[in-house]
Amino acid sequence: MNSGSLIERFLARALRSAGDGGPPRLAAAVRHAVFPGGARIRPRLCLAVARACGAEYAPAAMVCAGAIEMLHCASLAHDDLPCFDDAATRRGRPSVHRAYGEDLAVLAGDALIVLAFQTVTREGRIPAELRLQLLAVLGTAAGMPHGIAAGQAWECESDVELTDYQRAKTGALFAAAAVAGALAAGADPLPWQRVGDHIGEAYQVADDIGDVAANAQQLGKPTGRDAALGRPNAVARLGMDSAQVRLQRLVDASIDAIPACPGAQELRMQFQQATHYLFSSRLARPAA
Amino acid sequence: MNSGSLIERFLARALRSAGDGGPPRLAAAVRHAVFPGGARIRPRLCLAVARACGAEYAPAAMVCAGAIEMLHCASLAHDDLPCFDDAATRRGRPSVHRAYGEDLAVLAGDALIVLAFQTVTREGRIPAELRLQLLAVLGTAAGMPHGIAAGQAWECESDVELTDYQRAKTGALFAAAAVAGALAAGADPLPWQRVGDHIGEAYQVADDIGDVAANAQQLGKPTGRDAALGRPNAVARLGMDSAQVRLQRLVDASIDAIPACPGAQELRMQFQQATHYLFSSRLARPAA
Repeated sequence: MNSGSLIERFLARALRSAGDGGPPRLAAAVRHAVFPGGARIRPRLCLAVARACGAEYAPAAMVCAGAIEMLHCASLAHDDLPCFDDAATRRGRPSVHRAYGEDLAVLAGDALIVLAFQTVTREGRIPAELRLQLLAVLGTAAGMPHGIAAGQAWECESDVELTDYQRAKTGALFAAAAVAGALAAGADPLPWQRVGDHIGEAYQVADDIGDVAANAQQLGKPTGRDAALGRPNAVARLGMDSAQVRLQRLVDASIDAIPACPGAQELRMQFQQATHYLFSSRLARPAA
Repeated sequence: MNSGSLIERFLARALRSAGDGGPPRLAAAVRHAVFPGGARIRPRLCLAVARACGAEYAPAAMVCAGAIEMLHCASLAHDDLPCFDDAATRRGRPSVHRAYGEDLAVLAGDALIVLAFQTVTREGRIPAELRLQLLAVLGTAAGMPHGIAAGQAWECESDVELTDYQRAKTGALFAAAAVAGALAAGADPLPWQRVGDHIGEAYQVADDIGDVAANAQQLGKPTGRDAALGRPNAVARLGMDSAQVRLQRLVDASIDAIPACPGAQELRMQFQQATHYLFSSRLARPAA
């Protein structure tokens, strides 16, 4: 079974057991927020780093991959709300609040944040100290002052440092995915933080390019939102050509940052392929 | 320093360090959601149970008390949103979304949920296994299928079992407070679950009485909301006299459920005093 199928199976199982005996429409809204997924790029990164460090199928890697995707899906459900992006569609389908109402979209996000922490907390196959390390990584990536909640909140400030905004809104979960993958494999997480930072920034630039260049049907969500909502966008700031150069440089930097590890060569190749994905997928596949 | 002051100090310190370097308005919205507090009845219960079990000032008790109050404040910020109760006031002041906007009210709730888990995760003075037990208690109380997110979501269902709704929406955090207090003191948590369940239900009945009998100025939040929003209310269901009898019975049941422990007698007296509080405070003090 490839890592993509493993991620889907893990998420499906986690959501099924979490919903048992609770309010059915909440469980359905949570499923809608998570399935069908986008590219699952963050959990794939987590598993890829764990594999490069020699432990792809460690329970800790799979659990963190799933938890990080839950935090990501929670943030999408909340970001799409009328008080933020007011997005009618996501991944080519109605956004959670359009399908289930604003109330259940808020609660589905809340429940997914909690489930992410529960998922790691409960995994008895992971040593207690490692579980706590992984929970700390998730907390940093999700909350204040530099996690995705903070990243989204920078949009509510008049004076925004672009780097702070992008690092928190997009970079935090990518860095967490890389760091958690390394921790899961018992490797030193420090160099992987930089790898994750670079990939996160590359992904943000690719997303900015998609927001300007794609149409909504191609992307599965509304386009031109950054300009409409006055949000920072790399293409608006640099122009399309320079943004594409910047994207390539960030992918190169992420490849250069990969530390010596058993699967370094294979991971470099995967990142090269990801470059192709980042350049093209924003225009051709459902968004992550 | 009494337990009330300790709780305020703990929360203030946790929020200060969480906000450092992040978006200032998010930090302000989070502070608005937490300060000034209501009765802090859940964290007080946690500390009171830990004291009864012989360990009031254990770091685990204080950390859990704070984390539980954060989860409670997060749920209030989200419950007050226009898509739920649309409450303009809370604790006699503008609700978070009225003061900071819907976007920051959503994010303040998200950040507080994450901070609750971070607070316990990071407390290195608590043994790793105990931290994980406490995190599991928090997760159960906050998420699906029986935590406060689920409780709130029962309001979005057409077919609601009243007990499921009230246990999840109100009881879950009270039970977590009692169980965490016992765990923090190294006591068997099982009997304390029942104590917490009864107190939670008593509190819900007291709140229902307040919603019908008090006026908004007395309660610090809008009244008559249950009837207006078609939500279950013990007074509407039983009548005022029977609801008051039910409240007394639930307090008695919580007192009877207190297991043998060093401070059982003192805790019984506190619960008796709490009865008085539950009967009168809904009509005279800011709401919790």
